[in-house]
Amino acid sequence: MERFNVKKNSKQAIAKCLERPIQKSADIMNLVKPIVEKVQNEGNKALLELTAKFDRVTLEDPVLFAPYPESMMQITPDIKKAIDISFENIRIFHEAQNQKDTLTVETCPGVKCSRFARPIEKVGCYIPGGTAVLPSTTLMLSVPALVAGCKEIVFASPPGKDGKLTPEVVYVAHKVGAKCIVLAGGAQAVAAMAYGTETIPKVDKIMGPGNQFVTAAKMLVSNDSNAMCAIDMPAGPSEVLVIADKFADPDFVASDLLSQAEHGIDSQVILITVGMTREEIDKIDVAVHEQALVLPRVDIVRQCIAHSYTIEVDTYEEAFKMSNDYAPEHLILQIEDAESYVDKVDHAGSIFVGSYSPESCGDYSSGTNHTLPTYGYARMYSGVNTATFQKFITSQVVTPLGLQSIGKAVMDLAEVEGLDAHRNAVKIRMEKLGYI
Amino acid sequence: MERFNVKKNSKQAIAKCLERPIQKSADIMNLVKPIVEKVQNEGNKALLELTAKFDRVTLEDPVLFAPYPESMMQITPDIKKAIDISFENIRIFHEAQNQKDTLTVETCPGVKCSRFARPIEKVGCYIPGGTAVLPSTTLMLSVPALVAGCKEIVFASPPGKDGKLTPEVVYVAHKVGAKCIVLAGGAQAVAAMAYGTETIPKVDKIMGPGNQFVTAAKMLVSNDSNAMCAIDMPAGPSEVLVIADKFADPDFVASDLLSQAEHGIDSQVILITVGMTREEIDKIDVAVHEQALVLPRVDIVRQCIAHSYTIEVDTYEEAFKMSNDYAPEHLILQIEDAESYVDKVDHAGSIFVGSYSPESCGDYSSGTNHTLPTYGYARMYSGVNTATFQKFITSQVVTPLGLQSIGKAVMDLAEVEGLDAHRNAVKIRMEKLGYI
Repeated sequence: MERFNVKKNSKQAIAKCLERPIQKSADIMNLVKPIVEKVQNEGNKALLELTAKFDRVTLEDPVLFAPYPESMMQITPDIKKAIDISFENIRIFHEAQNQKDTLTVETCPGVKCSRFARPIEKVGCYIPGGTAVLPSTTLMLSVPALVAGCKEIVFASPPGKDGKLTPEVVYVAHKVGAKCIVLAGGAQAVAAMAYGTETIPKVDKIMGPGNQFVTAAKMLVSNDSNAMCAIDMPAGPSEVLVIADKFADPDFVASDLLSQAEHGIDSQVILITVGMTREEIDKIDVAVHEQALVLPRVDIVRQCIAHSYTIEVDTYEEAFKMSNDYAPEHLILQIEDAESYVDKVDHAGSIFVGSYSPESCGDYSSGTNHTLPTYGYARMYSGVNTATFQKFITSQVVTPLGLQSIGKAVMDLAEVEGLDAHRNAVKIRMEKLGYI
Repeated sequence: MERFNVKKNSKQAIAKCLERPIQKSADIMNLVKPIVEKVQNEGNKALLELTAKFDRVTLEDPVLFAPYPESMMQITPDIKKAIDISFENIRIFHEAQNQKDTLTVETCPGVKCSRFARPIEKVGCYIPGGTAVLPSTTLMLSVPALVAGCKEIVFASPPGKDGKLTPEVVYVAHKVGAKCIVLAGGAQAVAAMAYGTETIPKVDKIMGPGNQFVTAAKMLVSNDSNAMCAIDMPAGPSEVLVIADKFADPDFVASDLLSQAEHGIDSQVILITVGMTREEIDKIDVAVHEQALVLPRVDIVRQCIAHSYTIEVDTYEEAFKMSNDYAPEHLILQIEDAESYVDKVDHAGSIFVGSYSPESCGDYSSGTNHTLPTYGYARMYSGVNTATFQKFITSQVVTPLGLQSIGKAVMDLAEVEGLDAHRNAVKIRMEKLGYI
């Protein structure tokens, strides 16, 4: 990995390491728009055509409804156990986030304001295909939906070359009680869930990562008031920032860098070393090289590492400032007393704290969600969480005493804004109560 | 108001009452795009030109920085008190929502998952102009930002014909410590905050209602990864749905219908009456007529009421089903024992419960937020709240014991997904620990 040093290299050079590649969203939009419109207009027929075209699979029916046949979820006992353990940890962590109680506050005498969560009724979980179908994403999207109490969970996942769904995906669909699985990927799958078709139910919100086409389609439908469909967040290539010091095990650091690198050649991998000597950093590079050699995806990994950087800084403050400026999707802390530094993190998707917390634990089984903001969007977006599948409604009860507390204020402000009927709605009540 | 009855009119006719007018977003987008690009490319110069063109005001400088001169916030003691009361109630309710503590759960032995809030650093509050500048919106956007701990609050509000800002807006900017006020409205104000200019700071997220141009600009910038700017939600014309029964005071119901109607001719006003006689409903119509006569905005109100509907139903169940299908921005319950019905609400922005809780209380002073989802988006969006100004970061600490708990599951799932480096990151640790 190319090395930079805050004392030896210019600020511009360092800044360049932390720059993300520019995304050309307009071009993609022009490709995606006709696909989305085709599905919106022609429904299942379009979906089957597009799946034949893009996935080279001819299907009879683009959707599979529950109950799912046992034959479609044949998985090994080990994998079943792995899914069950992950499911349970994700459930526990997202259940803990679930705000079940109504929050009620008397803001002033006789004015009671409340706030409570309600599930989003129908949700779509997009499980990407590509280099590998990811059953883990199925868990990350549908378990919080289950915890939130969504009434209808719809999956979409591209079929394999044999026209079949990944059995692990079907098993999770069964476990969470998903209503159906749309056998499609890309923009066409997003459109099918956003607008619905003859048989596919229209959903209220679509969650899940995906390539540029999926992201563009999600943006399109979320901006179309005819779709009436929200999305979780914009998605971009995955990324990791590792902060390491001399107490870090070079093998562990290397393994974390590589597990990000194998996601794809457009993944971003950044290592910030704090007060480490050249020799200490060399050990990490050697470990990266050695571990990469035995990986099946060694070619992807090599291409990714070629545009990855090591940045040497002297202090933890510098490291965390740099990390906060970058706002990484994944932040790994391989430093002494790592837990005490979590407070310094202002922007990140998810943090992996200490030697024995590799990113892959969070990707699968620790309980945190792996659908996280990328491309710097961690500055303003949260990862997928229980509230992603809910909305919050407020309510207020104002008593006659309450009108005494705030009635005049309401009338005065309505007058300033020239909204006489607003003023009158309070005035008429206060008059009948004999207050004015 | 035109009347429909679920027993006498067809389902189609009833459904038509609850239909929202179709929004043509593509046309607006084409108008807004060059405006946004002009500000992005030319900064303050473009902003001044566009304000001269659209607001017919020639300014020297498009931005006013704190500290704000006393002379610009001259307001009456009554208005100052009204703002202070509203400010405090909004602060109390949004402070109660503020999740300050880190949530920590041990999902299984040795695996500790946490979640905590961080403020979004720089936020933009858009305060619309139009028929009236609304100081109340200033409060609704900036008080939660203050509670959330945002470091930089930027206001944007179109100047009046005299080139001056509404003094109430400046007073609130002073109270919340806003860094500056952009003297502009429309798409150009959104662009200035999203991209920043020579002097206007770029923000991370833009909140606030606005007309179609503002909404289109918000959507544009939220989809542009060069802007890196989130938005609160899509906005549409304001709307109210009132459920009334024979226990409702016809004068109160009329005043609530009218206070929505005066917002604009595109406002939607729907009244659902439960088991009321023709004569009882007549009384509401008479009250609407009489109250409207004395309103300064009587013309707007009349045009709005002309396309508003009364729908007669027999049961509360029917009323709430209809309301949930419509998903109103504002839901007013003028029925006996109204509080007991809040549980039946699945989709709404904010609920106004009982005889003495007119919508205008929530618009100004009760403490709930008045920036709410419209156009049916209450199905999946929350109104503006404290979390709108925050994002949540997760973190995890896995100990050696934790790796024993989940290590095998992680490795098995990584293998299924063909992600060998992910598997290796756990394997290498478990080997060094002597677990495998």
